[in-house]
Amino acid sequence: MPSPHPAYDALASLHTRLHRLSHLQSICWWDQACHMPAKGREARAEALAEVAGWMHRLITDPALPQQLQRAEQEPLDDWQRANLREMGREWRLANALPESLVAEKTLATSRCEHAWRSQRPANDWKGFLENFRPVLRVARQEAELLAEQSGLSRYDALMDRYEPGMRGETVQRLFDDVKAWLPGLIERVTERQARQPLRLPQGPFAQAAQRSLSLEVMQWLQFDFEAGRLDESAHPFSGGVPEDVRLTTRYREDDFLPSLMGTIHETGHARYEQQRPREWITQPVSQARSMALHESQSLSFEMQLGRSAGFVRRLAPLIVRHLGDQPAFEADNLQRLVHRVERGLIRVDADEVTYPAHVILRFEIERALIEGDIEAEDIPALWDEAMQRLLGLDTRGNFKDGPMQDVHWPESLFGYFPCYSLGAMYAAQWFAAMRREMPDLEDRIGRGELSPVFDWLREHIWSQGSRWTTEELTLRASGEPLNPAHLREHLERRYLG
Amino acid sequence: MPSPHPAYDALASLHTRLHRLSHLQSICWWDQACHMPAKGREARAEALAEVAGWMHRLITDPALPQQLQRAEQEPLDDWQRANLREMGREWRLANALPESLVAEKTLATSRCEHAWRSQRPANDWKGFLENFRPVLRVARQEAELLAEQSGLSRYDALMDRYEPGMRGETVQRLFDDVKAWLPGLIERVTERQARQPLRLPQGPFAQAAQRSLSLEVMQWLQFDFEAGRLDESAHPFSGGVPEDVRLTTRYREDDFLPSLMGTIHETGHARYEQQRPREWITQPVSQARSMALHESQSLSFEMQLGRSAGFVRRLAPLIVRHLGDQPAFEADNLQRLVHRVERGLIRVDADEVTYPAHVILRFEIERALIEGDIEAEDIPALWDEAMQRLLGLDTRGNFKDGPMQDVHWPESLFGYFPCYSLGAMYAAQWFAAMRREMPDLEDRIGRGELSPVFDWLREHIWSQGSRWTTEELTLRASGEPLNPAHLREHLERRYLG
Repeated sequence: MPSPHPAYDALASLHTRLHRLSHLQSICWWDQACHMPAKGREARAEALAEVAGWMHRLITDPALPQQLQRAEQEPLDDWQRANLREMGREWRLANALPESLVAEKTLATSRCEHAWRSQRPANDWKGFLENFRPVLRVARQEAELLAEQSGLSRYDALMDRYEPGMRGETVQRLFDDVKAWLPGLIERVTERQARQPLRLPQGPFAQAAQRSLSLEVMQWLQFDFEAGRLDESAHPFSGGVPEDVRLTTRYREDDFLPSLMGTIHETGHARYEQQRPREWITQPVSQARSMALHESQSLSFEMQLGRSAGFVRRLAPLIVRHLGDQPAFEADNLQRLVHRVERGLIRVDADEVTYPAHVILRFEIERALIEGDIEAEDIPALWDEAMQRLLGLDTRGNFKDGPMQDVHWPESLFGYFPCYSLGAMYAAQWFAAMRREMPDLEDRIGRGELSPVFDWLREHIWSQGSRWTTEELTLRASGEPLNPAHLREHLERRYLG
Repeated sequence: MPSPHPAYDALASLHTRLHRLSHLQSICWWDQACHMPAKGREARAEALAEVAGWMHRLITDPALPQQLQRAEQEPLDDWQRANLREMGREWRLANALPESLVAEKTLATSRCEHAWRSQRPANDWKGFLENFRPVLRVARQEAELLAEQSGLSRYDALMDRYEPGMRGETVQRLFDDVKAWLPGLIERVTERQARQPLRLPQGPFAQAAQRSLSLEVMQWLQFDFEAGRLDESAHPFSGGVPEDVRLTTRYREDDFLPSLMGTIHETGHARYEQQRPREWITQPVSQARSMALHESQSLSFEMQLGRSAGFVRRLAPLIVRHLGDQPAFEADNLQRLVHRVERGLIRVDADEVTYPAHVILRFEIERALIEGDIEAEDIPALWDEAMQRLLGLDTRGNFKDGPMQDVHWPESLFGYFPCYSLGAMYAAQWFAAMRREMPDLEDRIGRGELSPVFDWLREHIWSQGSRWTTEELTLRASGEPLNPAHLREHLERRYLG
């Protein structure tokens, strides 16, 4: 019997091929970050470019638009229909830009990123601007083309690559809400914490002991070690493929919390990947819904669960077992340690209370940059003004710990930053929904039972892949659209409760 | 100006693409052996099959025969001419077999190899035969097709895949020479060694200490750690890519010599790869000349250099530094340890004196199998007869340590076995040539100066890639064709001198 949806089938088998090719890419990227020696770089770059070129040829095949149209008319079930929607999205993103612009972008970003590595420690803003202006110019062209194609505003068109359906206007509204209460909250929390005693852990902490602690915590978090690994890299990430997720962390001998909490964070990303719908694993519909949703998983693990009172109480004896006993590891002190709030210059070192401030200022600046309301030269003044207003910090002249601190802009990842704080909002919303459904949730976590959390996330998020739009998924999971009140409630309860 | 050799150029860029794609394969194979968790297997197999399929389509492009012919008529320099010869060889090997036969072979070998893993420990020869017969049947068809194409005999056509230019008749003549003196030599050596005192090292030896010892020895052997790594795997190999060679070893806590000597062996393979002609690195002409030549490098390192008196004297203090002092590590005792000769059933555990016996019997059996002179059922009797004659060992009923011990036949690697002993002959011949050119070589090695050895190998072997046929390379390097007298002299001098 011939298939009732031949065009859809052809598209599905194209995506299976793309999935297999991206497997090779992902494993080689992981290897590059964890293992590859210096002289392997050039051959690796050439090999990866070869496969990327092949994938590009597959997804820009001139037969695809017609196949996509024909498939629209075919009888498809709900999952297939959602899959087709995501196929269309991937096709549009891959075909929106002329090859010359893609090449120009690659050149501009790799030049800027490479120079940034030495310009940042040298605090060389002027030198950085030289390379960043071409990055911005190309990003604006890209935004313009994507905007024409989609009918979105320029910034929204860029953000849509990471967070489909989310709009700058919505983000601004959500962030305006946060801006109204965050500075006051930070003020109250830091004042309160200044009066609390705090014992700092005394290192050094051997790497091997930190690793065995991380592995045990990952096991507790139900990471599937038959379908993934933990390794070390300079910049921690969750990579690999859904069938074999490669987490990395980084160990500091003077402090074990960054590797421990970092591992918990990446395990959240990893479990989302490991639990993607298996029967669709090679297809776009199996993919994680969006970047904010992905961050909502890492933050569900790291912030909502991983810093909760019950979890920390169970964590304390594990820490003692692997790192030896010391007064700082007493459960109440440990909780104060992981709840410590400090205004700081660096986003990646920020706690969950001050973190949104870092994201909001980046969002407002990059949106204005892309929409053409400001120029690259205007960034430092705007940065300083926002850091003063939101965190009370003076950043004048300190570019390296200011607008030069992140790799996102050199790499032209405009539209990504909001996902971090949207993710924190989603995570708070998921846990609010869980608590409504399971009023004894905190107690169960306190008894070491994490399955209720994971079962809820699996049912509502992980198993759904990209079947729904983010809005639908949010509504189905939590009964309401994204609502920043849950983040506020979470922070107030945890830090002022 | 248009290129004077457009057809050659097109072929060269095809091979550059193949080189890049094989990079992804090699890194993923290495990962599979060293890191991949169990549930990653299926997705990995599919991804590797995808890229293999793509490479197959590239090398079976119907335009290639004409391009190869046209390139023959173009003005090419010596290296290009040699490159074209190797391109033709790769084309012939890839195009000789119909896809149906390739698929049948894949199925038969993977079924046989998979079952063999449990049948071997169970000594289940009958069960093994069930799966091995189809492997043999397909191998004979393959041999027939390759023989028709090349005009060689069937076995020679298979062996030519690994050892181009070598013929079964030549191997038989070389091996007949060895058979004439080897049993007597083994007899005299073992009698003599029975009278020598020998202290055995007392373990356990921590893995970390063995690893640091291996790393230091690799450094001494001038392995380039900026272009390669040492890791662990169940079956040691030298893999990766020439720009980034991935060695592996395996540690036994009760004995450090297998990992140490294994690492020295693999470092020989690795340096050959690391030193392939760089300006041709993406092209067939840059590749290692043949499998016997490759083995000649690992055996130059492990046997000729690595077990020489001068090297062992310098090795002793390194061992003490990493593993602690004990009487067995005294230099004379250490030398007796690494020169210990024992008749045994297992090829991979054999010393360099008894090793050729294992290879000769396999060669004679597999040649007769492929030529159709015997059937799979005849193997055990022939095996036992040869083991009796060459090593004085009874193997009746012991299939697991007999014809089932190696993975080569289940994987249909007929024609590979001779390369091991040809490699030992070549290695002895290289060192005989070095000693003629540098009469003080042993003294220099004894002073820890290894560069004269590596300079000679680089000049005569590594830098030549596949520029010459093996016969030409041998003649140029050593002034004579392959001559088994050097292996005999080497063994007699080392073990009876």
